[in-house]
Amino acid sequence: MNIQTPFTKAIPTGERPGSRRVYEPGVLHPCVRVPFREVAVHPSAGEPPVTMYDASGPYADPAASIDIAKGLERPREAWVLGRGDVEPVTARSVKPEDNGNAAGRHLAPAFRNDRQPLRAKPGAAPTQLEYARAGLITPEMEFVAIRENLRRDRAAAFIRDGEDFGASIPDFVTPEFVRDEIARGRAIIPANINHGELEPMIIGRNFLVKVNANIGNSAVLSSIEDEVDKMVWAIRWGADTIMDLSTGRNIHNIREWILRNCPTPLGTVPIYQALEKVGGVAEDLTWEIFADTLVEQAEQGVDYFTIHAGVRLPYIPLTARRVTGIVSRGGSIMAKWCLAHHRESFLYEHFEDICEIMRAYDVSFSLGDGLRPGSIADANDAAQFAELETLGQLTKVAWKHGVQVMIEGPGHVPMHKIKANMDKQLAACHEAPFYTLGPLTTDVAPGYDHITSAIGAAMIGWFGTAMLCYVTPKEHLGLPDREDVKQGVIAYKIAAHAADLAKGHPSARAWDDALSRARFEFRWEDQFNLGLDPETAREFHDESLPKEAHKTAHFCSMCGPKFCSMKISQDIRDAAAAQNDVAAGMAHMAEKFREGGGEIYVEAKADTTT
Amino acid sequence: MNIQTPFTKAIPTGERPGSRRVYEPGVLHPCVRVPFREVAVHPSAGEPPVTMYDASGPYADPAASIDIAKGLERPREAWVLGRGDVEPVTARSVKPEDNGNAAGRHLAPAFRNDRQPLRAKPGAAPTQLEYARAGLITPEMEFVAIRENLRRDRAAAFIRDGEDFGASIPDFVTPEFVRDEIARGRAIIPANINHGELEPMIIGRNFLVKVNANIGNSAVLSSIEDEVDKMVWAIRWGADTIMDLSTGRNIHNIREWILRNCPTPLGTVPIYQALEKVGGVAEDLTWEIFADTLVEQAEQGVDYFTIHAGVRLPYIPLTARRVTGIVSRGGSIMAKWCLAHHRESFLYEHFEDICEIMRAYDVSFSLGDGLRPGSIADANDAAQFAELETLGQLTKVAWKHGVQVMIEGPGHVPMHKIKANMDKQLAACHEAPFYTLGPLTTDVAPGYDHITSAIGAAMIGWFGTAMLCYVTPKEHLGLPDREDVKQGVIAYKIAAHAADLAKGHPSARAWDDALSRARFEFRWEDQFNLGLDPETAREFHDESLPKEAHKTAHFCSMCGPKFCSMKISQDIRDAAAAQNDVAAGMAHMAEKFREGGGEIYVEAKADTTT
Repeated sequence: MNIQTPFTKAIPTGERPGSRRVYEPGVLHPCVRVPFREVAVHPSAGEPPVTMYDASGPYADPAASIDIAKGLERPREAWVLGRGDVEPVTARSVKPEDNGNAAGRHLAPAFRNDRQPLRAKPGAAPTQLEYARAGLITPEMEFVAIRENLRRDRAAAFIRDGEDFGASIPDFVTPEFVRDEIARGRAIIPANINHGELEPMIIGRNFLVKVNANIGNSAVLSSIEDEVDKMVWAIRWGADTIMDLSTGRNIHNIREWILRNCPTPLGTVPIYQALEKVGGVAEDLTWEIFADTLVEQAEQGVDYFTIHAGVRLPYIPLTARRVTGIVSRGGSIMAKWCLAHHRESFLYEHFEDICEIMRAYDVSFSLGDGLRPGSIADANDAAQFAELETLGQLTKVAWKHGVQVMIEGPGHVPMHKIKANMDKQLAACHEAPFYTLGPLTTDVAPGYDHITSAIGAAMIGWFGTAMLCYVTPKEHLGLPDREDVKQGVIAYKIAAHAADLAKGHPSARAWDDALSRARFEFRWEDQFNLGLDPETAREFHDESLPKEAHKTAHFCSMCGPKFCSMKISQDIRDAAAAQNDVAAGMAHMAEKFREGGGEIYVEAKADTTT
Repeated sequence: MNIQTPFTKAIPTGERPGSRRVYEPGVLHPCVRVPFREVAVHPSAGEPPVTMYDASGPYADPAASIDIAKGLERPREAWVLGRGDVEPVTARSVKPEDNGNAAGRHLAPAFRNDRQPLRAKPGAAPTQLEYARAGLITPEMEFVAIRENLRRDRAAAFIRDGEDFGASIPDFVTPEFVRDEIARGRAIIPANINHGELEPMIIGRNFLVKVNANIGNSAVLSSIEDEVDKMVWAIRWGADTIMDLSTGRNIHNIREWILRNCPTPLGTVPIYQALEKVGGVAEDLTWEIFADTLVEQAEQGVDYFTIHAGVRLPYIPLTARRVTGIVSRGGSIMAKWCLAHHRESFLYEHFEDICEIMRAYDVSFSLGDGLRPGSIADANDAAQFAELETLGQLTKVAWKHGVQVMIEGPGHVPMHKIKANMDKQLAACHEAPFYTLGPLTTDVAPGYDHITSAIGAAMIGWFGTAMLCYVTPKEHLGLPDREDVKQGVIAYKIAAHAADLAKGHPSARAWDDALSRARFEFRWEDQFNLGLDPETAREFHDESLPKEAHKTAHFCSMCGPKFCSMKISQDIRDAAAAQNDVAAGMAHMAEKFREGGGEIYVEAKADTTT
């Protein structure tokens, strides 16, 4: 491990506790090398290691040499170039306003980079959607197919007993299935041709539910170091994609540092930067400034853009009587622009132009829900659903241009109104993947919105949402720091996995069962290591029972050494096993006692109470 | 405020931030005095204060004098005596085994108390159930009726648009409604005649969803001070009932300290103490020891007993093939006893005797789910549902004896199997209130089971569960400390309130709306004070923007002062209002732009993709 950075903090690297980094090669594309985290259990269990999805990139590979100043290796660049439909172009020059006119000591240092950006050759459409339509299985598609299966072909038979509400989750994901889902628009692989560092992942209802983590500086708080660290930290805990929501100055330079060190897709909201370029005055935004910003970010390698093209002028009055108006920052920027000019949104009017730019780099749409509800009171209202209908229309336009699309969703929604969101999205947006922020199921717990929203996220993930945008404990109160990022990611990994379980995803149950067997057998180390956060689980255990000997003890601090329900269950099982045949013995016992015992309390036929 | 205790820690007292303790008197029973927490908002809002449910007892009343060594005042004792159907009896003598034979410096000091316990006069049935059946509205019933309404008769019109799955929640709770629900067995008021310190609360599907917090020492960790502190701490954050799950030594003395200082119902699992009395050897348990323990605890004033009478001998073999066997401690004690003696459970065989004891003190049943699943793999299995059927039969037996009943439920259940639990409980247990532990919706997150279970708790609360037993972050790892108790209670207050909202409880929405209006209007102090945890919300805000001036600033650290979506929404509203008539103005604008704009992107009739 060799870390050379201008940073004072150590970027978190190395394998997670009890884990081993392994790779699975491609078959169609031997260049593909899919990372997994393998957790071995104690030999006494007699069980194979558990294969975990691993979004943490080279940082968790002990063989990788990490140098933030140089960026990650770019294995994917060869795949992109190998298709022969892109060409290097002269990079758009970085302008002072790209960094908010920061200068001197206020200007964040640029990432040193002499890479020439790639763009589609004239007339070419180098998007995963167009490849899929053409019947081509790309290395990206094979990568995600292998990734989704978690090597379960070599594991024991899997259990799937969920309710998937009409999804089409296969027992095994084949590269052809991936291709077909992308061609139908039901899934996307956000993968800008300029993001050579990317380890591809897929977002779709028929795949594992994914988690996005937002990072980014603001005009109040800002540091390259903090943002790169937060990105690495977020993916270490399992974030599948990162959104850089930076505002204020130095946006361009910070984004370059993040991208060159980021193995997951990176999303942005380009209107945020465009707004900075016009001094924060929404009315001064123009199509030209916005389009130039798209090119700037596409050349850097941003994988998906949130575009609030559904915030149409006629919908804005629908928000006037809301309790919390327009809470989407992008939505309110566009609303202000529309009202100030008394004109239809330039994002809507130029939507086909936006498609043309994004197609040339395979940037995916994340069609923003600028009119999402910001409170329980505003959930599922006319403004929200009017915009959703428009997003469905724009989805078809993007598809016509060969651009991948997902749809953003709310927000703040009480439990009884969540399913309607999913049902309407499926119907209005032609099964394009849904990507929701929470939703928060109540407004009353500032400081705990990772929990209010994990409830809604788990439910909407179960109903069919493909990716869940995390909410941290700082939501509504401040910018998340490192610890908040971790808390947000973990709450959302819980929600996503609970959703996978409930959908009956064939990869889901094996994890719970492995951990529960470890719990039942008092394999404390296995229980820690198989958990989402081994360090915290161990720390909590050790607060009560710190000694190493207790890690193999058949008790814990809840009941103490003398008596333990798990131990009694073991005794019951042992007693049964001692009869040399558990099943027969138990059946015999049950029969014997049914014969002897019978019911003492038989339900009264008539209700004897009032 | 005057605190005199042998304790080194300060018991948390005083009003919560921004709150004022108020009382609402009874009408039928002027002796009734129902506490509320009133949160005033900034005068600029032009809104009345928000009335909050307040479970924190005299500790949050600045006029109360708290002396842990003397215990709380006992206003309810007069209500109990006033009914004329109970009499003082000679207290059962405390035996050495009641405190696990602790002696000398190992014996926790006894609470000094010369109170004589009360018991039903011969032939009398002083239970809320029997009073309700007789058409009597007790002070306890009027107390909870006032408590449930949150003074909303004096608030603005309320909104209720939930889905309640067949519940019968009235717009206003009358004392007569309470009486009727109790008479039907659909709700209980756990209220031992010996718990004079009690502020009554009600548990039922047609009332606000309640939260229980477990505390208790173990053989490994033990202290009177810590347990009393945890009790006061838990109710300060909103726990509606407390269960004392102490094991190890000094159980009797610690329970007395807790009860004499506890304004909420206190529940226990008497088999835990009975087991201590026989040295932790389950086989040595007898009916006589158990019955004596019930009397011991009933005389102290315990309000509900978890009794695992549904763990019948024939069901035990059904657990042999489970992944995690029997995880209920009480369930496994009884299973071990049954197997050792090859006999039906003495709890089941003596169930009517148990009813007779509990009726004499109005101790409510919490019929334990000793065979609840301890892992996702074991959810909704034959053992669990066999026991549930038996609990339904026992419910009828308890009702025959005039004893109040609620039913305990799981445990670990994936989302798609949660509703079946509620539906089966309603059908099998004749609508007796359901009281569930979580359920945890996945097993993979040790250290975060307050979150894995808050998801399931919110859902099952929505479906009809009346009380949610909290799970702390330490679940499966160690005994919860003070901070864990707080985290568990808050996660569960979120789940309970999210459930109330989704059920359409008429008291629920006003709270969310008041907080959201504060949020939208940048009334930071109001947002903090209306939240579940004002201190944490303020602290999080101040990490980024510590200055007092920022508390009135129309921005936060997320977007900084220059640009803020909330502010833009205000601008939109102001612009509309400037037209002197918001509604007309906005409608005019909408029409104007619909005429002018029209649709640019009309949905293609034929699907143009594959």
